[in-house]
Amino acid sequence: MIRTMVLTKEDKLILDEQIDDILARNDIKWYWIDFSKPTIEESDSLQTFGFHPLAVEDCLHLKQRPKVDYYDSYQFYVISGLYHKTLKSHEIGAFLSPNMLVTFHTLPHMEIDELWNYLSSSQEAPQKDPKWILYKIIDKMVDASFPHLQTIEEQLNRLESKSSRSYQIQTLMEELFVVRRKLSHIRHFANPMRELIDRMIHSEKLNHSDEERRHYQDVHDHLVKLTGMIEASREITSDIRDNYLSINSNRMNTVMMTLTVITTIFMPLTFIAGIYGMNFQNMPELKWQYGYFLVLGVMVILGFAMYLLFKKKGWFDE
Amino acid sequence: MIRTMVLTKEDKLILDEQIDDILARNDIKWYWIDFSKPTIEESDSLQTFGFHPLAVEDCLHLKQRPKVDYYDSYQFYVISGLYHKTLKSHEIGAFLSPNMLVTFHTLPHMEIDELWNYLSSSQEAPQKDPKWILYKIIDKMVDASFPHLQTIEEQLNRLESKSSRSYQIQTLMEELFVVRRKLSHIRHFANPMRELIDRMIHSEKLNHSDEERRHYQDVHDHLVKLTGMIEASREITSDIRDNYLSINSNRMNTVMMTLTVITTIFMPLTFIAGIYGMNFQNMPELKWQYGYFLVLGVMVILGFAMYLLFKKKGWFDE
Amino acid sequence: MIRTMVLTKEDKLILDEQIDDILARNDIKWYWIDFSKPTIEESDSLQTFGFHPLAVEDCLHLKQRPKVDYYDSYQFYVISGLYHKTLKSHEIGAFLSPNMLVTFHTLPHMEIDELWNYLSSSQEAPQKDPKWILYKIIDKMVDASFPHLQTIEEQLNRLESKSSRSYQIQTLMEELFVVRRKLSHIRHFANPMRELIDRMIHSEKLNHSDEERRHYQDVHDHLVKLTGMIEASREITSDIRDNYLSINSNRMNTVMMTLTVITTIFMPLTFIAGIYGMNFQNMPELKWQYGYFLVLGVMVILGFAMYLLFKKKGWFDE
Amino acid sequence: MIRTMVLTKEDKLILDEQIDDILARNDIKWYWIDFSKPTIEESDSLQTFGFHPLAVEDCLHLKQRPKVDYYDSYQFYVISGLYHKTLKSHEIGAFLSPNMLVTFHTLPHMEIDELWNYLSSSQEAPQKDPKWILYKIIDKMVDASFPHLQTIEEQLNRLESKSSRSYQIQTLMEELFVVRRKLSHIRHFANPMRELIDRMIHSEKLNHSDEERRHYQDVHDHLVKLTGMIEASREITSDIRDNYLSINSNRMNTVMMTLTVITTIFMPLTFIAGIYGMNFQNMPELKWQYGYFLVLGVMVILGFAMYLLFKKKGWFDE
Amino acid sequence: MIRTMVLTKEDKLILDEQIDDILARNDIKWYWIDFSKPTIEESDSLQTFGFHPLAVEDCLHLKQRPKVDYYDSYQFYVISGLYHKTLKSHEIGAFLSPNMLVTFHTLPHMEIDELWNYLSSSQEAPQKDPKWILYKIIDKMVDASFPHLQTIEEQLNRLESKSSRSYQIQTLMEELFVVRRKLSHIRHFANPMRELIDRMIHSEKLNHSDEERRHYQDVHDHLVKLTGMIEASREITSDIRDNYLSINSNRMNTVMMTLTVITTIFMPLTFIAGIYGMNFQNMPELKWQYGYFLVLGVMVILGFAMYLLFKKKGWFDE
Repeated sequence: MIRTMVLTKEDKLILDEQIDDILARNDIKWYWIDFSKPTIEESDSLQTFGFHPLAVEDCLHLKQRPKVDYYDSYQFYVISGLYHKTLKSHEIGAFLSPNMLVTFHTLPHMEIDELWNYLSSSQEAPQKDPKWILYKIIDKMVDASFPHLQTIEEQLNRLESKSSRSYQIQTLMEELFVVRRKLSHIRHFANPMRELIDRMIHSEKLNHSDEERRHYQDVHDHLVKLTGMIEASREITSDIRDNYLSINSNRMNTVMMTLTVITTIFMPLTFIAGIYGMNFQNMPELKWQYGYFLVLGVMVILGFAMYLLFKKKGWFDE
Repeated sequence: MIRTMVLTKEDKLILDEQIDDILARNDIKWYWIDFSKPTIEESDSLQTFGFHPLAVEDCLHLKQRPKVDYYDSYQFYVISGLYHKTLKSHEIGAFLSPNMLVTFHTLPHMEIDELWNYLSSSQEAPQKDPKWILYKIIDKMVDASFPHLQTIEEQLNRLESKSSRSYQIQTLMEELFVVRRKLSHIRHFANPMRELIDRMIHSEKLNHSDEERRHYQDVHDHLVKLTGMIEASREITSDIRDNYLSINSNRMNTVMMTLTVITTIFMPLTFIAGIYGMNFQNMPELKWQYGYFLVLGVMVILGFAMYLLFKKKGWFDE
Repeated sequence: MIRTMVLTKEDKLILDEQIDDILARNDIKWYWIDFSKPTIEESDSLQTFGFHPLAVEDCLHLKQRPKVDYYDSYQFYVISGLYHKTLKSHEIGAFLSPNMLVTFHTLPHMEIDELWNYLSSSQEAPQKDPKWILYKIIDKMVDASFPHLQTIEEQLNRLESKSSRSYQIQTLMEELFVVRRKLSHIRHFANPMRELIDRMIHSEKLNHSDEERRHYQDVHDHLVKLTGMIEASREITSDIRDNYLSINSNRMNTVMMTLTVITTIFMPLTFIAGIYGMNFQNMPELKWQYGYFLVLGVMVILGFAMYLLFKKKGWFDE
Repeated sequence: MIRTMVLTKEDKLILDEQIDDILARNDIKWYWIDFSKPTIEESDSLQTFGFHPLAVEDCLHLKQRPKVDYYDSYQFYVISGLYHKTLKSHEIGAFLSPNMLVTFHTLPHMEIDELWNYLSSSQEAPQKDPKWILYKIIDKMVDASFPHLQTIEEQLNRLESKSSRSYQIQTLMEELFVVRRKLSHIRHFANPMRELIDRMIHSEKLNHSDEERRHYQDVHDHLVKLTGMIEASREITSDIRDNYLSINSNRMNTVMMTLTVITTIFMPLTFIAGIYGMNFQNMPELKWQYGYFLVLGVMVILGFAMYLLFKKKGWFDE
Repeated sequence: MIRTMVLTKEDKLILDEQIDDILARNDIKWYWIDFSKPTIEESDSLQTFGFHPLAVEDCLHLKQRPKVDYYDSYQFYVISGLYHKTLKSHEIGAFLSPNMLVTFHTLPHMEIDELWNYLSSSQEAPQKDPKWILYKIIDKMVDASFPHLQTIEEQLNRLESKSSRSYQIQTLMEELFVVRRKLSHIRHFANPMRELIDRMIHSEKLNHSDEERRHYQDVHDHLVKLTGMIEASREITSDIRDNYLSINSNRMNTVMMTLTVITTIFMPLTFIAGIYGMNFQNMPELKWQYGYFLVLGVMVILGFAMYLLFKKKGWFDE
C-alpha cells in the first residue's frame, strides 16, 4: 500500500494523491509518502523520486544496520523497529529533506499507522514538519519496545520463584529459551538504534536545533535504559538456568545415593538367601537345629553394619 | 507527601509552606521542595514550576539511567539509589538551580529523610545551598550501599567454608542465587551512577568550584571501590558454584562406582545360586557328595577375582 | 592460469596478451592481469612487474590479514573472500595503480570469473577503471557470503524447533558443531575485511572521490550487518546447546528416579521371598497355617509404605 | 605504633621525636612519620597536620582504590600492597610534600619495616628524599608479590600433572579453589596499582624528573608482567578444572556401561532360574529328562547373544 | 657463552675478541656481542658497558613484558621468542645504538645462532648494521612460530573428525589440554610482541626510515595473522570439548534408559517367581492344576505392558 499526505503552502492537508501529481505540484510545504508493505509494482515507484541507486537498492533489500547516509539534497535513513507480531527487528528506509519524507517498510507497522491517523485527523499537521514526523516514528518505535520487556521481566519474576520449587522443569527450560530469544531480538533492535541516534545527535550535517537534539537525546536515554534492562534480564535467565542445573545435579546425587544404599544392603542379603535356597542333597547347615535363626541373625548384623558404614561415610547427612 | 524548606534572605528557615506561596515570594535565598512518594494529585504540582515537558515526563515515568540534562536556567538530574527494603535501584529526579532544588521520588528514601531532618533541626542551613544538598543526597546514597556489600562479603565467607564441607547444598545454591541477585541490583545502581558522577566532574557547564569537584571526586572514588568489591564478590559466587559442581560430580562418581562394584560382584553369584535352586528332577550336580561345597568354592573364587579386577582397574584408589 | 585484459587509449579491449608485451606497450589506458590458481612457473611472472619484494613475498605466501600497503606508484592490497567450496576465507593479493590492476589468488574464485566475463563480453569496459574493478571484486565477495548465512539461519530455525522435541540428539549436536565451524569461517572473513574497508574509507592517501567512498561505505554497511547476523546465529547455537543439555539433564533425572523407585520397592520384597525360599529343615513360619498370607500381607504393606514415602518426597511430581 | 624520622638541614638523622615537636622545628630538611597499625588514639594525631578532612577520612576508612589527590601543598596517595599473611590487598595512605612523608596503614607491613630499618641504620638517608621513600615503598610492595605468584605457578605445574592421573580429585578441586582465590587477591592488588602508576607517570602535576619517571616506568613494567602471569595462571586453573570434568564425565560413562551390561545380562538369566525354582505341583518341564540342560543351554545362548549385541553397539570399544 | 662480532671501519669482520678490547678500539663501524646462556661470571661482563642499572637489572632478571626503553645514547629492548624445545615464551634483552648491539638471553636460541652464522660466514655483513640485525632477530622469532601453529591446526583437524566417532575419549581430552597449553604459550608470546612492534612503528624517537618501518609493519602483519590463527584454534578446542560433552551426556542417557528398562521389567517378574519359590506348606495356588501356566501368563502380560508403557513414553525413540 502507498499512501500520501501533502501539506500545501496554504496549510491545507491533501491525502492519497498520486505520486507523480505530488512531484509535479509546486505549491507544497511538505509531503509524506509511506510505502507500507508495498507490492513489487508499488516498490517500483521508488525509482521515480530520483534517489541515488545505492540508497534505493538498500531500501529494497534492507541488508543494513540502522544508519544515516548524507546526500546533497536529502538524507537516507535506515531505522529499525520491533515488529509487534514476531518481536523481530525490522528495517524501515526513510528519505528525508526539509519538505519531503518518504518511508518504506515491507511489514505494516502499527506505530506508523497511528502517527498517520493522528496527523490526518487532527488539525496539528501545519505545526509539524518531516523532521518531526521522522523523530516521532523513531520515538514510537522505541517506546513500543518497553511493554515487551516489562512482560519479560514479570515472566522472569514468576520463573525465579518457580525454579526454587523445581516445578515442571522442562517447561521452565523452554520458557527460558523463548525469553532469551525475545531478549536477543530486542537487543538486536536496541543496540544499533542507540548507535544511530548517538551519531544523529552529534552529527553536524543534520543541523538539529537545540530542541530537536533534546528530543533525540531523550530517545537515546530511553534506549540506554532499555539496553540496561535487557542485560539485567539476560543475566537473570543465566542465573536461573545455572541454579536449576546445580539443584538438579544435587537431586540426582541424592537419588543415586538412595539407589546405591538399597542395592548395597539388599543384594548381599538376597545372595545369602539364594544360597540356602539351593537344592543340593548334602548341605549340612540346612539340618542344623538353629541354622535358620543363625542365618537370619547374620543377615540382620550384616545389614546393620552396612547401614552404619554408610552413616559414617556421611551419606545420610543430606 | 510534599515537604518544603525555604531559606529567606535574612537566613530564616521556613518549613512546609505551599508551593504557590514559595514561588510567589521574592525574599528567598533558596528553597528545597521534596516530593516523597507523592500521590497522583501531588505529582501534578510538578507542572507548576514551568519545567521542560520532557524533564517532567522523565520525572513521572523514570525510564532513565542516571543522567544530567542542561536547561537554560536549571539542570535536571536523574540519580539512583538503592531502596533499602528491596535492595533494588530506584530513580530520583532532581531539578537544580542556584536558588532551587526540587527532588522527586516515588519511594520514601531514609537517606533523604535524614538529610531533611538534619537541615531543618540544626542551625547549619544558612551555610548550605541547593548544590550542597544534592551532593549530600548522592553521597549518602552511595555510602548507604557499603553496609549491604559488607553483609554479602561476610555471607560469602561463611558459604566458602561451607562449600568444602558440602553441608546442606540446596540451601547453599539458593543462598548463592540470592546473593547474585543482590550483587546484580547493587551493580545496576553503582555503574550508571559512576558514569554520571564522572560526567559531572568533567562537565564545564556545571561551574563546579575546586572544593565541589573534590567532593564529587570522593564520591566517585567510593563508587569505583564499590564496583571493584562487587566484581570480586561475583567472582567468588561463580567459583563457589563451580567448586560445588566439581565436588558433586566427583561424589556421584564414587557413588556410581560403589553401586557398580556391588552389582557386578553379587549379580552373577546370585544367578549361580538361582540355578541350583531350580526344581528339575534330573540335575546331576545336586546329588554329588560335595556339589554344595564345590559351588560355594566357585562363588568365593569368582567374587574374589572380580574384586581383584576392580582393584587393578583402580576403582578403589579414590 | 594467467589471463590479461588491456584497454588501449582508443578504448579497444585486447584479451590474453603476454605480460611482457603489455608492459612494453605505451598505448594503454589500463590493464588487468589475473593470476588465478597459477602454477609455480606462472607465479614467477609476478617478479617481472618490479613490485617491492615484501609485497611479492606476501602475495606468494599470504600469511596476512586483509590490509593495504602504500607504495610510491601503486598500492598493495590483501583482501579476503570465502571460497565457495570450503567456506573458508582465502586471501587475494592485488596491486593497484591508476592504470594497472594485478590480482593474485591460489584458488579459482567464481566471483572474479563472473566479473572477468562481464567486462570482456559487455561493451562497458571503457567506462570502468582498475579502481572500479577492485571495488567490484570486493563487493561481489561480500555479497556472496550472504546466501551462506541465510542457509545457516534457516538451518538453525529447523534445529530450534527440533531441540524441543528432542529428536535424534546426536545428529543435532553434530549439525550445531558444523554450523559453528561455518559461522567461525565467515566471521574470520568478515571482521578483518570490515576493518580494512573502514581504513580504506578514512584513508586520505587513497584519494577516493565521494562516489567511490559511498560505494565502499555501502560494502562496509553490508559487512556490519553480516557481522551482526553472525553474532546472532552464534548466540542461537549456544542457546540450543544449553537448552538441550538442561533438558537432557532433566530426562536423566527422571530416568534415575524411575530406576531407584523400582529397585527400592522390589529389592526388599524379593529378599523376603528369598528368605522363605530357603530349605532349612527347621523354619517354624513355614508350617503356620496362614504364614504364606501373612508374608504376602507384609509385602503389600511394605511396598505401599515405600510408595507413600516416595510420593511424600515428591518424586512423582514431575 | 607511630614512628618518626627527621633529617635536619645539617643532614643529621633524628628518630622517634614527638609529632608536635617535629612540626614546630624549622631546621628540617625532611621528615617521615609512619603510622603502623596505630591505636585509635594514635590515629587522632593525623588531625594535627592540617590535612584536608576528606583525605583524613579516606585515610581512616580506606574505602578507596589506589589513587592520587592533588592538594595545594601536598599530594595524598592511596596505594595498596599485599599483606603477606592473608595475601589480601591492603590500603596504605600517604601524604607527600617535598619535605614531608606521612604514611598510614592499619596492618604492619614488613616491606615498610625493612625500608625504615635500612634508612635509620645506613648512612644513606641524606642522599634520599620523601619522593624516593614513597617510590621505594611502592617498589618493594610490587616486588614482594612475585614470590607469591611463583609459588602458585609451581603449585599449578604440580596440579597439572596430577590432573591427568586423576589422583585425589576432591583435594585437587580444593587446591584449585584456593589458588583461584589467591590469584583473585593478587589481581585486585595489581590492576588498580598499575592504573595508579600509569597515571603517576603521565601526570604533569607531579613534576617527576626523567630519572623518577624511569623508576616508576620500571615498577609499571613489573606490574604489567605480573598481570600477564596472573591471567595465564587463571587460564590454567580453568583448563585443569574443565579437563577434570571431561575426564570424570567419561569415567562415569564407563562405569555406567559396566553396570548396565552386567545387569542386562544377568537379570533375565536370574529370572529364568527363578521360574524353575517355583514350587508348583504341575510344572511339566521339571519332569523332562533333559529339561535342566535345555534351560542351561538357553541361558548360555541368551547371555552370549546379549554380549554380542553390546559388542555390536560398540560398548566395549572404550 | 659470549661471542663477539666486530666490523671495522675498513669493513673487516673480526670474531671472538674480548669485550674490553672491543670497547677500547676506535676503528669500529659497529659490533654485536651476544650473551647466549651466559654463566654467572659471564653475565657480570654486562656491567662493563656502563648501561643504566635498571636496564641491566631487567636484563638479568627479565621480569618484563616486551618493551623498549629510551636512554640518551642507546635503546634497551626486551623482546620475546618461543623457545623451540618448551614452546614457552622466553625474554631476550637487547641494547641497541647505531654502532652497537648487545643481546642477552639465558637460553640458546636457534634463530640467533642461524643469524650469527649467516653474518659471520657470508660476505654481507658490511651491508648490514645493528638495527637490521635486531630486526632480523625479531623477524626470525616471529616466523619460527608459524610452523608450531600449523602443526596444531593439523592436529585439531584430526581431533575434529575423531570427536564425532568418539574414539579414545580420554586421549582426546588430554590432547586438547596439551593443545590449549601450547596455544596459550604462543599467545603469551604473540600479543605482547605485537604491542611492542606497534609501538616501535609509531615511535618517533626511533628515527626509522620508511624502509625500516615497512619491515616492522610486515612483522606486525604476521603477528596479527598469528593472533587470528591462535584465536580460531582456541575456539575450535572449546567447540570440540563442548561437542564431546554433549555427545557423552547423550550416550549416558541412552545407557541409563537401557538399564532402567531392563530393571523395571525384570525386577517385578523375578519377585513374582520368588513368591512361588517360597516353601510354605499352605500355599493354595501351588496345587492348582494350571497355577504355573497362569503365573507364566501373568508374567508375559506384565512384561509386555511395561514394554508398551516405555514405548509410549518415547524411551525407544532414540
